[in-house]
Amino acid sequence: MRILGIDPGYATIGYGIIEYDNFRFKVISYGAITTTPEKLFPDRLCDIYNDVITLVKTYKPVCLSIEKLYFNTNTTTAIDVAQARGVVLLAARNNNLDIYEYTPLQVKQSITGYGRAEKHQVMEMVKNLLKLNAVPKPDDTADALALAICHGHTSGSVYNKYKDVR
Amino acid sequence: MRILGIDPGYATIGYGIIEYDNFRFKVISYGAITTTPEKLFPDRLCDIYNDVITLVKTYKPVCLSIEKLYFNTNTTTAIDVAQARGVVLLAARNNNLDIYEYTPLQVKQSITGYGRAEKHQVMEMVKNLLKLNAVPKPDDTADALALAICHGHTSGSVYNKYKDVR
Repeated sequence: MRILGIDPGYATIGYGIIEYDNFRFKVISYGAITTTPEKLFPDRLCDIYNDVITLVKTYKPVCLSIEKLYFNTNTTTAIDVAQARGVVLLAARNNNLDIYEYTPLQVKQSITGYGRAEKHQVMEMVKNLLKLNAVPKPDDTADALALAICHGHTSGSVYNKYKDVR
Repeated sequence: MRILGIDPGYATIGYGIIEYDNFRFKVISYGAITTTPEKLFPDRLCDIYNDVITLVKTYKPVCLSIEKLYFNTNTTTAIDVAQARGVVLLAARNNNLDIYEYTPLQVKQSITGYGRAEKHQVMEMVKNLLKLNAVPKPDDTADALALAICHGHTSGSVYNKYKDVR
């Protein structure tokens, strides 16, 4: 099963594509979509949409694993992250990917076995699980790979399949 | 100038299309895009995207006037409204509309001359300015028409043109 992990954002959107088969992972690609503050925000959304579609068409993942959003203190940023995340969901769904979302705690739990693990511990485990020579940079990329791994680990369950908010 | 006003949401998205020419308004169409809670949230985003594109292709507005979002207390709802708003911005921008955003205070000020006007006063002014027989329902629709009128009133200025968040 090929999984696309995405760490939401609007300036830097980490992505990681892995192949998961019977508890074994293989990295297919990873990196970050970036948008420039030189552009108006709606144009940055267009860039994100097009780049996600390019990833999907190039690597043909069957599902998207994406971080569940919570508000933080920087509300303007949070609104824009949410707006960009909506565009990522649209791009994935318009290309028939199933969508799953996980909280940071679920990701940490899945990767390290401990929901309150430090960030660097998660990064190190991502490197080891995927047999990489170094922790992928930027952090958004490693986070995206962690999301993809997390979904691989829990893919037997539909528990985290995107639930609508009623 | 043909203006599309949109009141953001994910269950009910009011829209209003007006023709503005030299301080005169003419209603072209208004109503609400609705999505069903029976569907998964990403599928509701797809419906919103497709419906906005249908509006744009049918009525050919040259610009979008949309409410600026602030957080409210219901954070889950706010995130989903923001995600849906991102999709609306994408649909508009992918069809070459210029995008302008206004705060509720700016809309009230523009419609009634008073930023702290009551909601029913704004609704009544929308009805009168557009020579309608009744206040459009649901409120989201009247809000969308108010956004379109607001942009007509201020269209001489580029002050509210969508600014990127730096």
